[in-house]
Amino acid sequence: MRNLLLTICFDGANYHGWQIQQNAVSVQQVFQRALERILGGQPDIKACSRTDSFVHAREFCISFHTEHSIPCERLAGAMNHFLPKDIAVLSCREVPDEFHARYSCLGKEYEYCIWNKRVRNPFLSGRALHYWAPLDLDRLNRAAACLVGSHDFTSFCAVDARERDNMTRTVTEARWERQGGAVSFFVSADGFLYHMVRIMVGTMLRVAEGKLEPEAMERILTACDRRAAGPTAPPQGLYLNRVFYPVNP
Amino acid sequence: MRNLLLTICFDGANYHGWQIQQNAVSVQQVFQRALERILGGQPDIKACSRTDSFVHAREFCISFHTEHSIPCERLAGAMNHFLPKDIAVLSCREVPDEFHARYSCLGKEYEYCIWNKRVRNPFLSGRALHYWAPLDLDRLNRAAACLVGSHDFTSFCAVDARERDNMTRTVTEARWERQGGAVSFFVSADGFLYHMVRIMVGTMLRVAEGKLEPEAMERILTACDRRAAGPTAPPQGLYLNRVFYPVNP
Repeated sequence: MRNLLLTICFDGANYHGWQIQQNAVSVQQVFQRALERILGGQPDIKACSRTDSFVHAREFCISFHTEHSIPCERLAGAMNHFLPKDIAVLSCREVPDEFHARYSCLGKEYEYCIWNKRVRNPFLSGRALHYWAPLDLDRLNRAAACLVGSHDFTSFCAVDARERDNMTRTVTEARWERQGGAVSFFVSADGFLYHMVRIMVGTMLRVAEGKLEPEAMERILTACDRRAAGPTAPPQGLYLNRVFYPVNP
Repeated sequence: MRNLLLTICFDGANYHGWQIQQNAVSVQQVFQRALERILGGQPDIKACSRTDSFVHAREFCISFHTEHSIPCERLAGAMNHFLPKDIAVLSCREVPDEFHARYSCLGKEYEYCIWNKRVRNPFLSGRALHYWAPLDLDRLNRAAACLVGSHDFTSFCAVDARERDNMTRTVTEARWERQGGAVSFFVSADGFLYHMVRIMVGTMLRVAEGKLEPEAMERILTACDRRAAGPTAPPQGLYLNRVFYPVNP
């Protein structure tokens, strides 16, 4: 039995997230249909995470066991043949039997992209939040710095997902960068709660608007109360950028 | 009578070029419909150029005379309200009466974008040519250098557009650049013949493939024969980047 790891990339604008949904097209559904055409049967696939509707991935990892002997290179090529243009298989390789796309994952990097000019950018439609008020990057980076470290992120988790026992996550990097009219927030952590990045961004935009001081982020973390944080930023600006696994999993 | 200059930006993936067509949606048609909703009547609009189907513009200029007194700022805002997300009005200003978007134009810069990795990029679907063989930028730049200067570009003009008397154009810049997986050709000239940039790119890709030497470009120019050049590269990689007018037209 081989264990395969596929890394894919997708523009999520036309999909209701990764996870299979009733009455809505998901990336998983399209991916599985292509995989079935190649392998015959349908393996039990494991994904590095769920993603919200309309969220993008520059790197998203999937693993599954299969008896099929197709070479990795050929499987990747065939998948790219059958998949629509907004999904691509970047690589396919064999991994040790115990590897699991979700449980073996050590962390992830997300990017939240904002188009920060008065006029919208036709090339970023569905791919960035259009936010035209001036953004003070120094101020945003002071707010972001408060998020780094191990914290209980209950305040930055959607209320309907709070059943989990452990709400502590370790953020290893959180920074804002500007490149021309595009402003991006990059955040890496060992794991993310439901809507965590989008609530972080929604809250920091309140900081940008002067409605909160950058240091208020600390108070919001301590509150452990979703109502202490700002709104959830819309999904179209969010990208899963990288998925971290042990070297040579 | 006011003379207005509007600069727009559009993702051309869903349009059959700028010019109004029968039985196909063009940018001009969508633009005029929005303009009519604001101005009431339909002014006689002049555009900096035509564009082929599926070609993009980061900057495209349109001028027209109108009696309407709407402030420029408000006209731009209202146009952006009525236009679809893949077209945006970047600016609107009043220009001297004799200004004409096409005849006043001193030159233009085009970019041709190639995604040069083995696997396609879902975020560049319809926005770049996917070409996976290695590209030697030194070799391409040697070919591009031959294009700079005043030449008869008959070899780089679509056959069905050769009625024109003057086929000489002055190319002021022609260079290739790589940024990660994206390779772009930038070319500026005082004017462009029909399909000129796409034939230049198609020919230089022959150079990249080793089927032509970079210096063959000179021979191709001298031939003044479309058959001497390479194929016409597909439209989706082409962007009208900038349109040059006299300072303060």
